[in-house]
Amino acid sequence: MNPIRRAMSSSRDCGLFTDHFPWIQSPVIVGAPMRVFSGPRLALAISRSGGLGFIGPGAKPADTATDLDIVRELLRESSAPFGPGDTLPIGVGFQLWNGDLQSATQAVKQYRPCAAWLFAPRNGQEEMDEWTESLRKASPGIHIWHQIGTVRESIEAAESAHRPDVLVIQGIEAGGHGRANDGMGLMALFPEIADQVRNSGMLLIAAGGIADGRGIAAALALGADGVAMGTRFLASTEARISKGYQDEVVRASDAAQSTARTQLYNRLRGTFGWPEQWSPRGIVNKSWHEHQAGVSFDELKTRHDEAAKSGDDGWGPEGRLATYAGGATGLVHGVEDAGVLVSKLRGDARAILNGLGSQ
Amino acid sequence: MNPIRRAMSSSRDCGLFTDHFPWIQSPVIVGAPMRVFSGPRLALAISRSGGLGFIGPGAKPADTATDLDIVRELLRESSAPFGPGDTLPIGVGFQLWNGDLQSATQAVKQYRPCAAWLFAPRNGQEEMDEWTESLRKASPGIHIWHQIGTVRESIEAAESAHRPDVLVIQGIEAGGHGRANDGMGLMALFPEIADQVRNSGMLLIAAGGIADGRGIAAALALGADGVAMGTRFLASTEARISKGYQDEVVRASDAAQSTARTQLYNRLRGTFGWPEQWSPRGIVNKSWHEHQAGVSFDELKTRHDEAAKSGDDGWGPEGRLATYAGGATGLVHGVEDAGVLVSKLRGDARAILNGLGSQ
Repeated sequence: MNPIRRAMSSSRDCGLFTDHFPWIQSPVIVGAPMRVFSGPRLALAISRSGGLGFIGPGAKPADTATDLDIVRELLRESSAPFGPGDTLPIGVGFQLWNGDLQSATQAVKQYRPCAAWLFAPRNGQEEMDEWTESLRKASPGIHIWHQIGTVRESIEAAESAHRPDVLVIQGIEAGGHGRANDGMGLMALFPEIADQVRNSGMLLIAAGGIADGRGIAAALALGADGVAMGTRFLASTEARISKGYQDEVVRASDAAQSTARTQLYNRLRGTFGWPEQWSPRGIVNKSWHEHQAGVSFDELKTRHDEAAKSGDDGWGPEGRLATYAGGATGLVHGVEDAGVLVSKLRGDARAILNGLGSQ
Repeated sequence: MNPIRRAMSSSRDCGLFTDHFPWIQSPVIVGAPMRVFSGPRLALAISRSGGLGFIGPGAKPADTATDLDIVRELLRESSAPFGPGDTLPIGVGFQLWNGDLQSATQAVKQYRPCAAWLFAPRNGQEEMDEWTESLRKASPGIHIWHQIGTVRESIEAAESAHRPDVLVIQGIEAGGHGRANDGMGLMALFPEIADQVRNSGMLLIAAGGIADGRGIAAALALGADGVAMGTRFLASTEARISKGYQDEVVRASDAAQSTARTQLYNRLRGTFGWPEQWSPRGIVNKSWHEHQAGVSFDELKTRHDEAAKSGDDGWGPEGRLATYAGGATGLVHGVEDAGVLVSKLRGDARAILNGLGSQ
C-alpha cells in the first residue's frame, strides 16, 4: 500500500485491532507499559474506556503475575463485558535485558493477557524472537508487540521469522528509556519506517511526545494505526506513582530545557546493566545540575539517598530523585482519571481530523 | 483560541496568509531560505506553484540584492500574475549573526520581497527586534518571520514590541543549523509552543523533518498554519546545489544513523563564529568517521581540501565535504521540479486529511 493510502486508511474502524481487541475504539489509544507506574488499575481503566492498557514490568519479574492476578480480581468484581474468551483485556510489557523468560511465559500462560510488549533485548532481534516464540507457544493468539526506535530494528523485525503483530515506533521525544545516541523525532522517523515495513502486515503504533488530541491526530496523519502514551498517564489518578513525582510531571514545561537523556539517575538508584543503546529521559533536578557542575558521583549518591528519605520533597526542582518523563511533559497540566482522559483525547483527535478533513 | 479549535481552523482557506500572499494555496507550503541552495529560481518555482519560496542568504550579504534582481528579471520575462503591487512574490532569509543589516534593509527597500525570515541572532530577541524594526520601516507591510527552536524564544517573540507576523517553529529533526543542545522533536515542541503563544496573533509554521504529504498533514494536525521544507527542496531541479551533494541527499536514509549535528564541517569549510546555541545537521561521511576515530583536525582539513578539488566525488559515503541535510532525508527518493513537487505534496496532504476526516 502506498504511504498516502496507508495514512488515509489507518485507524478506519481500527482495522485489525478490532479482531484482537473487540472493545477498542478509534483512534486507538494505548497506555504504555511503564515500569512499576503502569499497574493493574491504570491498564484496566484505559481498556475500559476503549483504549488498550498495558501493565509495565514490576520491580522484579515475579511482580507481573501478581499484577495480572489483580487484573483478574478487578474484572471479577465488575460486570464489564470484555472478550474474547478468558483473555484479559490488558497487555503486559517486558524489559528483556533484565527480564525472566521463564516466569514471563508462565504468567502469560496462566493469566492470558491479550498482548505482550517486548522491549530492550540485550541481544537484538534474536532475543526478541526467542521471547516471541515462547510467549506465542504458551498463549496461542497472544498479540506480540515489539518496541523499536531505529530504521534498522524495524527492518530486522519485518524480516524475522517471528515477526511481531505490532511495531511500536518510538521517537526521540519519548520519556523513560529510548535510543541513547541514535534517536530521531517521530515526524521524520515514523514515515520512513512505515515505508520500510509497508508489506510486512505489522500494525504500527507511534510513541514519544504524544500527550493530547493534536499529537494523536498528527500520528494518524503520519500513517500510524494508533498511538501509545506514557507521560500523559503518569498524571492519571490510577498511576502507581508518588505524589511528588506526579506533581513534577504536571509542573514541568519546556522539555528541551527541563529534561535530559542520561544514565545518571539509573546509577543513583542503583540500576546498572541497561544495554548501552538505551538511556532514559527524565526531568532534571539538583542531582543533574550538580553532576554538570562537577560534584562527584559518591557525593551525589549520598545526597540522593538522603533525599529519598524525604518523601514527596525528593522530587521537584530542589529534589534529587529520578523523574523519568517525556518531551510532552509541557502538555500535561493536571491529574485526571485515565478513563476520562482516553475518552476526551479520542474525541479531541477526532474533532481535529474532522475539522481538517472538511476544509 | 483553544488548541483543538486552533488545529481545526488552521489553514482553512489559508487564513491570514492569503491577505499577504494572495496566490498561496492550502495547505501552505514554504520553501525554507537555505543558504546559497535556495536561489531565485527555486523560490520562484515554489511561489508559482501556490507555495511561498524564500531565497536564502548568499555567500556574502551583497548576494541578496543580486538574487532579488534575478527574481525581478524572471518575473518580467513571464506573464504570471502576482500581487500585490510591486511586491516580489518571494521571501528572503537572513542569518543575523553574520548578516549586514544595512545592506539587508537596502535590498528589502529596493526590491520589496513579500517577507523576510530572520534567524540566528547573536544577541537574541533584541537583535531580532532591531532587524524587524528596520525592515518594516524600509518596506512597510513586509511580513516578518522569526525562526525559533525553543519555548523560551517563542515567548520572547510573542512578548516583543516588534513581534513577528510568523513564528517558524523548528524541530530537532531539521537539517542545516538548528538548536545545538536544547532541541526537541516537533511532535512535542510544536503544540507546547502553540499553547504558549496562542493569543499573540502570530501565524505558526512547522519546520524540521517534513518532506512529504504525511508530514504536512501531521503538522496541520498539530495546529500549524503551514509547513516549511528544506531538505525536500535540496532534491529539486532548481536548487543551487552540486550534483554530488544532491545525489547524496537522494541516496541517504535512516537519518538517525546517517546524519549528525556537529560543527566539524563548518570548521572544515572555514566557517567560524556561529553562536554556540546552534549547530548544523548533515549527512556524515569520511570526515566525520575519521574525526570520530581520532584523526587530527589539521589532517582532516588537508584531506577535506583535497576532496574539494574532486568535484562531485567530494560527497557521498566516501566523500569528505559538508552535506547539510535533515532527518527527512530518508523520505527523499528523487530529484523533481519544485513546482510539481509543491503541487503533488499539497494534494497528498489534502488526500490524507480528507481520508482521516471522513472516518
